[in-house]
Amino acid sequence: MDRFELIKSLKMKSDSRIVFLVLDGLGGLERHGRTELETARTPRMDELVCRSDAGLMIPVLPGITPGSGPGHLSLFGYDPLKYVVGRGVLSALGINFDLQPGDVAGRGNFCTVDENGLVQDRRAGRIPSEKGEELCALLRENVEIEGVEVFIQPVKEYRFVLVLRGEGLSGEIEDTDPQDVGEAPLEPRARTPEAEQTAEYVRQFIEQAQEILADQHPANMVLTRGFSTRPDWPDFEEVYKLRAGAFAQYPMYRGVAKLVGMQVADAGKSLEEEMQAVREHWDDFDFFFVHVKPIDSAGEDGDYARKKELIEKADTLLAELLELKPDVIVVSGDHSTPSQMKYHGWQPVPVLLWGQYCRRDDVQSFGESACRAGGLGPRLPSRELIPLAMANAGRLEKFGA
Amino acid sequence: MDRFELIKSLKMKSDSRIVFLVLDGLGGLERHGRTELETARTPRMDELVCRSDAGLMIPVLPGITPGSGPGHLSLFGYDPLKYVVGRGVLSALGINFDLQPGDVAGRGNFCTVDENGLVQDRRAGRIPSEKGEELCALLRENVEIEGVEVFIQPVKEYRFVLVLRGEGLSGEIEDTDPQDVGEAPLEPRARTPEAEQTAEYVRQFIEQAQEILADQHPANMVLTRGFSTRPDWPDFEEVYKLRAGAFAQYPMYRGVAKLVGMQVADAGKSLEEEMQAVREHWDDFDFFFVHVKPIDSAGEDGDYARKKELIEKADTLLAELLELKPDVIVVSGDHSTPSQMKYHGWQPVPVLLWGQYCRRDDVQSFGESACRAGGLGPRLPSRELIPLAMANAGRLEKFGA
Repeated sequence: MDRFELIKSLKMKSDSRIVFLVLDGLGGLERHGRTELETARTPRMDELVCRSDAGLMIPVLPGITPGSGPGHLSLFGYDPLKYVVGRGVLSALGINFDLQPGDVAGRGNFCTVDENGLVQDRRAGRIPSEKGEELCALLRENVEIEGVEVFIQPVKEYRFVLVLRGEGLSGEIEDTDPQDVGEAPLEPRARTPEAEQTAEYVRQFIEQAQEILADQHPANMVLTRGFSTRPDWPDFEEVYKLRAGAFAQYPMYRGVAKLVGMQVADAGKSLEEEMQAVREHWDDFDFFFVHVKPIDSAGEDGDYARKKELIEKADTLLAELLELKPDVIVVSGDHSTPSQMKYHGWQPVPVLLWGQYCRRDDVQSFGESACRAGGLGPRLPSRELIPLAMANAGRLEKFGA
Repeated sequence: MDRFELIKSLKMKSDSRIVFLVLDGLGGLERHGRTELETARTPRMDELVCRSDAGLMIPVLPGITPGSGPGHLSLFGYDPLKYVVGRGVLSALGINFDLQPGDVAGRGNFCTVDENGLVQDRRAGRIPSEKGEELCALLRENVEIEGVEVFIQPVKEYRFVLVLRGEGLSGEIEDTDPQDVGEAPLEPRARTPEAEQTAEYVRQFIEQAQEILADQHPANMVLTRGFSTRPDWPDFEEVYKLRAGAFAQYPMYRGVAKLVGMQVADAGKSLEEEMQAVREHWDDFDFFFVHVKPIDSAGEDGDYARKKELIEKADTLLAELLELKPDVIVVSGDHSTPSQMKYHGWQPVPVLLWGQYCRRDDVQSFGESACRAGGLGPRLPSRELIPLAMANAGRLEKFGA
């Protein structure tokens, strides 16, 4: 019996509410002996952790640095090694494109080729975003492929997303990016017989794009890669019997939430507006995924002080969430982003879980070092969190007699 | 190589003895900062834990509340998600019915139907147990189905167990209980083609029962559910090369022990008699499963003080077991039953393992909080305990050269 079957077979009706406050990139590394979280003044987290079960979580596997997709899937209880989402799909979700099941999405680059068709610049001199948008519009107006609907959406600078919509499409298409200059773009070959038709559509797209862009410089050609199909995964609401609402300001996180079947609320443009949205939807959902992005961005910028300040701001958000009196609240992150690394890290992520039937541990302040001795242990797989939250919310009945 | 194959390939001859003292429902939650176990005076456990490896165990998965079946299977090293036992089989074991491999067992209710055959009362007005026994006898005398042997055993009040014995039976039969009054009983449909014949037997049983009970009131019909086959699992003695004796006063636990192939001793009617039985059989077994039930019952009654007292009583039992000088002794539980919850809980269960070659940890008293920091860690899967016990008992040789 797998985990989802088990949980499906045990779920119980309840009107309890669960909040997951996800502080993106929360975990850090020490500077002068203390991490960003340990340096931050977080009276609300510290008070709550005294009454909670705490620990450190591994999002994927020890030593594996999670991207935002796997980090969140794991928090939602989806094994990120089983539920793999392709880069094309993530890119499409990242620009808030409304992917449908069966859609195939790929990443595109505008590039420069010489008169022999050999790639001179894989990024077309990093044309500005406005130019990229203009060229996408040009392609959109002129590309026409019989049998399939084509969407061409700008991402940033020279990057765009190509989405094909139709019957029987497959994402099993080889990249055309030769990775080196001086080489010709590769053929968009099918990796499986089922992908032949899709490969043919991509071939036609590339041919037409080359004609349409012939007089453009430096962006006179396209390269494609990372084709993937929007997956059709078990539905969060169906597996857990939780009406789930996602509150996130960045399209990527709304996208991942949508992929697992959560409903996406309008979280506005600030933490205050996001909190207001949670309040307004308090009666609409049983599970609230509340995402806070800027902590991660500060970590990626290598800005220890700003990351610390943003964690302090999240502490205020926590206070407001607690005023709503959820039955279970989790504070954690999707992965670490130590400001020393200026990048996502594999280091375990602090977590606290509060509910009526948590056994108290001795953790007195919310920080990496203190959490290591908590009741959830120093290496809880992130995907094991959600059944714990459900149990604390009285939503999982006994397994077996 | 799976776990059982590994252990089978490594087992060594030894005349060492292992005792598992299983305090049913041992784990608890804090009241005024201390759990039932932490409040109890347990000098023997506290003394022993100083020389032991200690920790907390997860019987099934984090957040999953174990029933008694999965809780014990895990202690015996059987993955409870792989070795799933149906409710009918557990009910039959629970009344001490001697199920054979291949037997199919289902739960039965006497119920009341109106003149149109619609269910008026799913429990036949909760007839007294004597009436239930009388009706079971009536059915037993009159039901006759060609091709299969039928057993009808009373459980309690309106509940009984139906066992079919014969060739090629299957437990894949749908429940007939419509779950609501005002509805007709459902057909005992086969879920697989292999179950068609068994479904036909159940259909005949129900038809005959309806005729036989026609003049009875209020118990004039039967409902059936939870059909399952007695599984044929790897044999405990064969996997571990341990002659295993089960000492338990409740049929359910004797039943689970029997399912994995342990021998079941007569444990009498009190802890004293159970201890006496262990003494008498000290030369007959290598592995002693000593089960103590009432701690769980006190937890389910929400009686913190009684649970505490019964743990103290178990401490005395431990002292007597130690006098027998086992080579390895484990003290733990099959799951938590916090008296605050009045129910089984998912919280990790304290465990201590004493043997000559345990590395000592810093745990000085046997309780949930102290065990969290023990050498076995805060989240040891229960099914990993038995290889540790075997290793300490000198019963597992080196793996690989």
